[in-house]
Amino acid sequence: MFSNQYMQQAYALACKANDSGEVPVGAVVVYKEKIIGAAYNQVEVAKNPLAHAEILALEQALAFTCTKYIEQCELYVTLEPCPMCAHAISLAKIKRIYFGAYDEKGGGVVHGAKIYNSSSCHHHPEIISGIMEDECSRLLKNFFNNLRR
Amino acid sequence: MFSNQYMQQAYALACKANDSGEVPVGAVVVYKEKIIGAAYNQVEVAKNPLAHAEILALEQALAFTCTKYIEQCELYVTLEPCPMCAHAISLAKIKRIYFGAYDEKGGGVVHGAKIYNSSSCHHHPEIISGIMEDECSRLLKNFFNNLRR
Repeated sequence: MFSNQYMQQAYALACKANDSGEVPVGAVVVYKEKIIGAAYNQVEVAKNPLAHAEILALEQALAFTCTKYIEQCELYVTLEPCPMCAHAISLAKIKRIYFGAYDEKGGGVVHGAKIYNSSSCHHHPEIISGIMEDECSRLLKNFFNNLRR
Repeated sequence: MFSNQYMQQAYALACKANDSGEVPVGAVVVYKEKIIGAAYNQVEVAKNPLAHAEILALEQALAFTCTKYIEQCELYVTLEPCPMCAHAISLAKIKRIYFGAYDEKGGGVVHGAKIYNSSSCHHHPEIISGIMEDECSRLLKNFFNNLRR
């Protein structure tokens, strides 16, 4: 069930990413109204281009449940997932995704590869987009504007 | 530079996966003619749907180089990467992929999402496919035939 508090948690994690010089994206995985995965982008600090918030939050949730699939979980993320994360979400059989800002350049859900529309996708999470879009989007814009200064 | 020995190594890893009841896929990452990442599918044992051979091999290679990108590396994998792995390979800026069998149902390189053809892909590795295709394909077919028995 949707609750704005979870996107606020994801947003708070995105702010932490921002403060540590990472592209500000945060994600939480929710199971029965409890957060079982919470992470922000760690690409720079981990020197790992795969360390996206969604992957890290999914890994925590999978470790927590000790199950191969987490069908009853929902994922909240401040930015439209990239194709890697979108497909990872499908592989874990996440029930529903809530995302904040749209990512025209790198997104893989409603943009680009549109992972869930392709024949290589065998589990289609429900998608609810544009939650706290303005805040999530502003955080990202400010981050990239500051980088260019 | 292509060397069949690396696909043979990836194939040997796929055989190990097979022997431990995992979908038989193996992958190696090569840097300056040295293997710096080598893994096979660990989805069942790790109860982790993201633990694909390519991801595990990439993580090892990234940890080895301590760099965010591994542009000078090549990846050998026995099966066409899925969309998650294909995009991860792009994010790590791998120079070239060699893959064995084609995956009509789950592949994301020449099938399905065709990750490298989409606008959300910003690094396009060179793709060389069909290396040791018969062996890699036969291993997978036998694995799934045995499962259905």
